[in-house]
Amino acid sequence: MRIYGDCLSGNCYKLKLVTELLGTPHAWKFVTWIDGGTKTDDFLARVNPAGKVPVLETSKGEMIPESGAALYYLARDSHLWPVGETDRAQVLRWMFFEQYSHEPFIAVSHSLKKRAAPSPETAAKLAELHPGGVRALETMEQHLSSNDWFVAGAPTIADISLYPYTSWAPSAGFDLSAYPEVHKWLGRVERLLGFVSMEDAIAQTTPA
Amino acid sequence: MRIYGDCLSGNCYKLKLVTELLGTPHAWKFVTWIDGGTKTDDFLARVNPAGKVPVLETSKGEMIPESGAALYYLARDSHLWPVGETDRAQVLRWMFFEQYSHEPFIAVSHSLKKRAAPSPETAAKLAELHPGGVRALETMEQHLSSNDWFVAGAPTIADISLYPYTSWAPSAGFDLSAYPEVHKWLGRVERLLGFVSMEDAIAQTTPA
Repeated sequence: MRIYGDCLSGNCYKLKLVTELLGTPHAWKFVTWIDGGTKTDDFLARVNPAGKVPVLETSKGEMIPESGAALYYLARDSHLWPVGETDRAQVLRWMFFEQYSHEPFIAVSHSLKKRAAPSPETAAKLAELHPGGVRALETMEQHLSSNDWFVAGAPTIADISLYPYTSWAPSAGFDLSAYPEVHKWLGRVERLLGFVSMEDAIAQTTPA
Repeated sequence: MRIYGDCLSGNCYKLKLVTELLGTPHAWKFVTWIDGGTKTDDFLARVNPAGKVPVLETSKGEMIPESGAALYYLARDSHLWPVGETDRAQVLRWMFFEQYSHEPFIAVSHSLKKRAAPSPETAAKLAELHPGGVRALETMEQHLSSNDWFVAGAPTIADISLYPYTSWAPSAGFDLSAYPEVHKWLGRVERLLGFVSMEDAIAQTTPA
């Protein structure tokens, strides 16, 4: 298997994290939108016509874009994808929650704070995104107040999918001290055997 | 099983569509955000703390929010969820695409055109959303130029998930005549045995 991506993106880092937790042999092909790598003719024709990373290439050469789909494929025979059908639906529930109700607020805020020049427009956009990020963190806090993990009392790809951008929340302008259960859960993820930090993942996947 | 929702929302209609296509026995509980029904104490405590529909209640009383997760659960033993693991990942790929790269542009545009008062702010927001909707339709058009269905040459919940808001694209301000393959695919979905239109779904699920 081969993964196309850059661990500068939380969506790509999710795939690196799951391969490390599971010990999945794979090749990492560094591709980033920053230098136009996701928009080359070859990438668009052969890897992902939507011009985005990450993409997982299976051992038969089929391309699987979208981090959630790739996480499913990487974890499908592992303990990170539970056995029960209701539990599986709950894993997907939190993965869809992450992509629809979390990432568009927290990841985008993070990106604006890191990359956009400070300006009234950036400040207005950050203020527009803030309530959505707060709602996402409140939903997580409430769920984690009676659960150690998102589904079935054990780590799954739901946790993996929620980890990267939640761990970035402070640098995206969200104070995690208001969400003590979220903070504790981040620590539980970081203590999993095989866990790799985003910084280490970037170091391991970026060409020298 | 019970479904909480209103078919005024495309996300709820997806669940009605899949139950009709599969002949799944279920009770429909009309709940809509429009009259505050998704924010009552009972709904928040018992059904979905995130205050959103649709929610699928399993026969054991477990609540599954998020349309994509509920579609998976409803279709998991049917022909709408393919057998091969790569095909399953591709179904999820298009379902995540729909929630991240399609719905936030086309469904939100539709909602703005239907519900918001015409104003410079609404016009500016519609203009901001337009390119994302075009990109989504172009991605679909390209895929459908060599595929009758999104995955594995047969209808799956990927098609069901993409159908509602794509069929609304014209009233959201997107001219489907520019996407002939998308237009033909909509017709293929509408000719499936058991297909129910959104209008009929609304009529069937709204209390008299």
